[in-house]
Amino acid sequence: MSTLADPDTPFAVVDRNRLSGNLTRLRERLEPRGVILRPHVKTAKSVDIARLAFGGGPGPITVSTVAEAEAFADAGFTDITYAVGIDPHKLPRIRALNERGVTVRVVLDSATQAEAVARNRVPALIEVDCDGHRAGVAADSPQLIELGKILADQDCLQGVLLHAGESYYASSPSALAAAAANERDVAVQAANALRAAGLDAPIVSVGSTPTAHADVDLTGVTEVRAGTYVFFDLFMAGLGICTIEDLALSVVVTVTGHHSTKEQVFTDGGWTAISYDRSTSSQAVDQGYGLVLALDGTPIPGLLMTDASQEHGVLAMREGELPDLPIGTRVRILPNHACSMADQHQRYAVVETGTDVTTTWPRIQGW
Amino acid sequence: MSTLADPDTPFAVVDRNRLSGNLTRLRERLEPRGVILRPHVKTAKSVDIARLAFGGGPGPITVSTVAEAEAFADAGFTDITYAVGIDPHKLPRIRALNERGVTVRVVLDSATQAEAVARNRVPALIEVDCDGHRAGVAADSPQLIELGKILADQDCLQGVLLHAGESYYASSPSALAAAAANERDVAVQAANALRAAGLDAPIVSVGSTPTAHADVDLTGVTEVRAGTYVFFDLFMAGLGICTIEDLALSVVVTVTGHHSTKEQVFTDGGWTAISYDRSTSSQAVDQGYGLVLALDGTPIPGLLMTDASQEHGVLAMREGELPDLPIGTRVRILPNHACSMADQHQRYAVVETGTDVTTTWPRIQGW
Repeated sequence: MSTLADPDTPFAVVDRNRLSGNLTRLRERLEPRGVILRPHVKTAKSVDIARLAFGGGPGPITVSTVAEAEAFADAGFTDITYAVGIDPHKLPRIRALNERGVTVRVVLDSATQAEAVARNRVPALIEVDCDGHRAGVAADSPQLIELGKILADQDCLQGVLLHAGESYYASSPSALAAAAANERDVAVQAANALRAAGLDAPIVSVGSTPTAHADVDLTGVTEVRAGTYVFFDLFMAGLGICTIEDLALSVVVTVTGHHSTKEQVFTDGGWTAISYDRSTSSQAVDQGYGLVLALDGTPIPGLLMTDASQEHGVLAMREGELPDLPIGTRVRILPNHACSMADQHQRYAVVETGTDVTTTWPRIQGW
Repeated sequence: MSTLADPDTPFAVVDRNRLSGNLTRLRERLEPRGVILRPHVKTAKSVDIARLAFGGGPGPITVSTVAEAEAFADAGFTDITYAVGIDPHKLPRIRALNERGVTVRVVLDSATQAEAVARNRVPALIEVDCDGHRAGVAADSPQLIELGKILADQDCLQGVLLHAGESYYASSPSALAAAAANERDVAVQAANALRAAGLDAPIVSVGSTPTAHADVDLTGVTEVRAGTYVFFDLFMAGLGICTIEDLALSVVVTVTGHHSTKEQVFTDGGWTAISYDRSTSSQAVDQGYGLVLALDGTPIPGLLMTDASQEHGVLAMREGELPDLPIGTRVRILPNHACSMADQHQRYAVVETGTDVTTTWPRIQGW
């Protein structure tokens, strides 16, 4: 049995108990509401973690790249939504998966895309904008019906998809509930507009990790997507969606030196390991490049990662005196954003309690 | 022959003509000064590019990870400096390379590290601080001599190494020349202090891409390290070290949509492809997430990448009207920071003129 003291640093580690807690929590929130949970596997990009989300078997998933769709199809997942506006150039790979018997549906918001998708007989959802943050047509627009007709003409129309970008700025439970209610309302309005035009919209898909955890009625919605919830991160803790004790992903780094005059500790975990993501800098509490834990997961109060170069990290206290961290000491860094920290790694060391590594899970890479 | 229109986007592309120009330029600057150029391969992490830097064969290199040292040793490179303060846990892998006949020297600034390095009989340089930016002992400190003695006692002392972190903030040619002169002066002072104590310091290693291109005398210095210069980037252009026409790395992305009301274009190149790096935000001209070129490398004046999510990029004009960019159009994004953009990719498509892809070069990954 290896431990977190064994592999050369930096490396990513997943706390399986926390992961299981996060998976159970959202499943239990959504089950009584009669909606399907379709996890967004872009966060972990791990077949092992996606299987855990469904008690061992495959289930409906969301992906962010064709490479994920292909890898999950190879692993036996057969119900996949590729939730990034489709580049028509990628349709041959999507069609090949559908011809193998794996349902991979795409997302679009323009006639150019809809015509290419219909020509390839690929199932699709129409992206609807609910808060002006990114792509999507308006729920009350003639374009929605126009796109629905192009798709329905080749039996490709499966429904609508929304993402409440605004929820990442919701700094109170009421603002979050409002973002989630708006996402639901616009989704249902769009689906009903298609139905009123004589078109079928069986899938009404909403979601983000914040809105998935909001306390709103989901009548009319058929499924909820969420990605970050498997690991959670400091940004989600800053939004109040989770606590810091829920965070299941971290990176193990080693102390390699101390500044000769400043109160700084150097580590071998730079931005290649931690990522450049500083999402919490826009929140009430800026967590630097991440909070620091002892190797066994115990918090080291007040210690932050404050700077990053390619293979160097800098740790410093928010205030007060640095603890004793001799060269060779290993610590863990918690992420601002789990998706971007995870994306810097090719695999996860998995721990359950303490520092024993029980297994290693690979990550899907590339596009 | 494939072209830049063929692979699914996003993917990284290297302009070989610009790369060759950058390699030649620094080689020709340094050759008449009698110093060795020891390129830092952390930027490209490519054996093919390192060979080009030496006209086809292996030469002295700098690496940022043990994985790079191992991969370059396997490719026939035999003179390697691992220029990140050594974590003693990694010494067995370094020692194994030295026992194979590949010289891999490490860098350190503490007695704990020096004792571990001496026990393992690994050659080493002492890191000296010249501007307070990161690690290193002072050139006039008793610690320098103390570390020198620990290393020399086991024939491990090879010299000193410095990195002028201040040069990244040098906003004028005179400030840059001052940073480079200071780096040289402190390096020579440290080497002479070791020699005055009866210790040997054959290697006097300085460098950063900015100081390597500064116009200063290098008497007393034996070698110069530089990494970013192979590709250059918008940050280096902002410092005046290169022009935007020298930039040899970009990422090809595809237009996937347009905002319904804002003047924004969406692409399939988010932070997984471009990186979160926004270095130019601290410079006089903020280049957003990067400047946009047409697929053939022609600039599209005023067009910037202004936002990034995981697999979405947003393009907008600095001012004025958006050009016509229909869905499916491919463009290239120039990086704020070549090291971090490159780090998001597993390979490079290589072009010489136009959009014909002549070959693909792999990148070294992990630690």
